Amino acid sequence: MNEMLALGKAYLASQPFSQLMGTELLKFSEGDVELKIPIRAELMQQHGFVHGGVISYAVDNALTFVGGSVLGPDVVTSEFKINYVKPVMGDAIHACASVVHAGKNQAVCRCDLFASNTGEKSLCAVAQGTISRRAQSHSG
Amino acid sequence: MNEMLALGKAYLASQPFSQLMGTELLKFSEGDVELKIPIRAELMQQHGFVHGGVISYAVDNALTFVGGSVLGPDVVTSEFKINYVKPVMGDAIHACASVVHAGKNQAVCRCDLFASNTGEKSLCAVAQGTISRRAQSHSG
Amino acid sequence: MNEMLALGKAYLASQPFSQLMGTELLKFSEGDVELKIPIRAELMQQHGFVHGGVISYAVDNALTFVGGSVLGPDVVTSEFKINYVKPVMGDAIHACASVVHAGKNQAVCRCDLFASNTGEKSLCAVAQGTISRRAQSHSG
Amino acid sequence: MNEMLALGKAYLASQPFSQLMGTELLKFSEGDVELKIPIRAELMQQHGFVHGGVISYAVDNALTFVGGSVLGPDVVTSEFKINYVKPVMGDAIHACASVVHAGKNQAVCRCDLFASNTGEKSLCAVAQGTISRRAQSHSG
Repeated sequence: MNEMLALGKAYLASQPFSQLMGTELLKFSEGDVELKIPIRAELMQQHGFVHGGVISYAVDNALTFVGGSVLGPDVVTSEFKINYVKPVMGDAIHACASVVHAGKNQAVCRCDLFASNTGEKSLCAVAQGTISRRAQSHSG
Repeated sequence: MNEMLALGKAYLASQPFSQLMGTELLKFSEGDVELKIPIRAELMQQHGFVHGGVISYAVDNALTFVGGSVLGPDVVTSEFKINYVKPVMGDAIHACASVVHAGKNQAVCRCDLFASNTGEKSLCAVAQGTISRRAQSHSG
Repeated sequence: MNEMLALGKAYLASQPFSQLMGTELLKFSEGDVELKIPIRAELMQQHGFVHGGVISYAVDNALTFVGGSVLGPDVVTSEFKINYVKPVMGDAIHACASVVHAGKNQAVCRCDLFASNTGEKSLCAVAQGTISRRAQSHSG
Repeated sequence: MNEMLALGKAYLASQPFSQLMGTELLKFSEGDVELKIPIRAELMQQHGFVHGGVISYAVDNALTFVGGSVLGPDVVTSEFKINYVKPVMGDAIHACASVVHAGKNQAVCRCDLFASNTGEKSLCAVAQGTISRRAQSHSG
C-alpha cells in the first residue's frame, strides 16, 4: 500500500462517524478518491433501499477527501449539490470523486456514486461541490 | 400528540438508518417539519465537530418529510444542495424544513439546520431541494 | 435616495450586461437587495415565457449584490443553485436576495424571484449560493 | 449538416433571448450538446469579464438542450447548480453538456463551460441539473 493511501486510511479511521458507517478507503491519490461502504440493514430507509442520508454522507466524505488530496488535510466541505438518480441496493456503495479545478484555498470537485451488486456497478447519484481550507471556510 | 405527528413518528421509526442516528421528530404538519438528533461521540469527524454527513443526512430527511407532508408518504428526495456555514457542536441538531412551492408531483423545499447548546441555537447549514412522488422520481 | 442605494445603482450601471438586460436596483441595504427587470419580448424563450437564462442572470446578480452589501464591492459569485418553480410571465421580474450567513471572506445568500403582473406577485424561482471576496475566489 | 442539428438550430432560433445573446449551436446529438456564444462588450460585467449571468444562461440553455435531446423538445430546466471556477474572457464561450442519467420524464445532466481565446480553451464553470418534460415540471 502506498504512503498516501495509508495516510488517508489513518485519517478516515480518526472519524468516529465514518467508523460507525463502516467506510473503507479504496483509492487516495492526488485528485482521485474512492470510498466504499458495505451495505447492511442498519443503513436502510423504509422501502428497503439505502437511506439517502447514507449516500449524501458518502458523497460529502468523498468530496472532502478528494479536496484534501490537493489542498492538504485541513479542509472542510463548504457546500455541495447531489442528484439521486436511482435507488441504492446491493452489496456496497462506491463513491468516486475527482477534482475539477483547484485554487490555492478551494477546490471544486465532483463525485459519482455507484451501487455494486455481485460485481455489477450502476450509477445511483452524482454530486458537485466546493472544498475549502479550514481557515478560508465560511465559519472562519 | 396530534395524529399527523404520530404518523410521522411511525414513519421515522420504520427507517433503520434514522434509528441508528437517533433521530426524533419534533414537528410534522403540512409544510412544516422539525427533526432533532442528539449529538453523541459516534457522530463526530476528526476535529471534534459533528460530521458533515450527519448534517446532510438530517437535511435530506427533513426535506423528504416536509415534501411528504404535502405530497403524501410515498416520496423520495430527487436532489438537494447544502451550504455549511458553521461547524456543528453542542447538545443536538435541529433540522427545520418548509415547503417553498408544491406542484402535483414535486415540491421544492428549504431546510435550516441549527445546533443547540444549552438552549442557545445557532444556524449551521442551509439547504434547498426537490422532493418527488416515487412514481415520478428519476428512478421511475 | 439614500447613499448606499445610489452607490449600488452606479455599480449596476457599470455592468454592460445589466444595461442590456434593463435591470433596475430597487433596494440595496446591508443584507437586503431587490432587483427588477421589466419583461420584454427579447427576454423570452420559445413558449412565450421569460427565458430561464434571464432568471438565472437575475438571481446571480441579486446574490452578488447582496453579498457585496456585507463583504464590500469587490466580490464574485462562487456558486449558486436555482430551482424554477413556475414559468415567468407578466410585467417584470423581481429578484429579492438576503444574507443567510456572512463570514470574513464569504457570504451564503438566498434569493426569491417573483414575477409581477399588474401588481400581483407570484414566486417563480428560489436560489441559494456563495458570494466571495475576489481575492478569495476560486479564480484567485 | 445532419437533421438533428438542423432541428436544434431551428429550436434555438425560436428563442428571442438566445438571439439577443448571439448563441450558436455547434453540436446537437443524443446526449451531447455544444453551444457557443461569441464574447462581445455587451456581455461584460464591471471588471471586464463576461457577466456571470451570461454564463448561467449558457449553462441553463445547454442543459435544457441536452435534456431535450433524450426527452424530446417539450422540456424545461427544473433546477441546476453552477460553480464558477475562473473568470471568463477571450473570444467565445463554449458550453458542453451531457446526460448523466435519463428516466422517462426527467434527465440529470452536466455541463462544462469553457472560454476560448485564440484557439486555447480553459474550463471556467461546471454545472449539474435536472431537465423535465413540461407536463412533469414543477409548474405543472
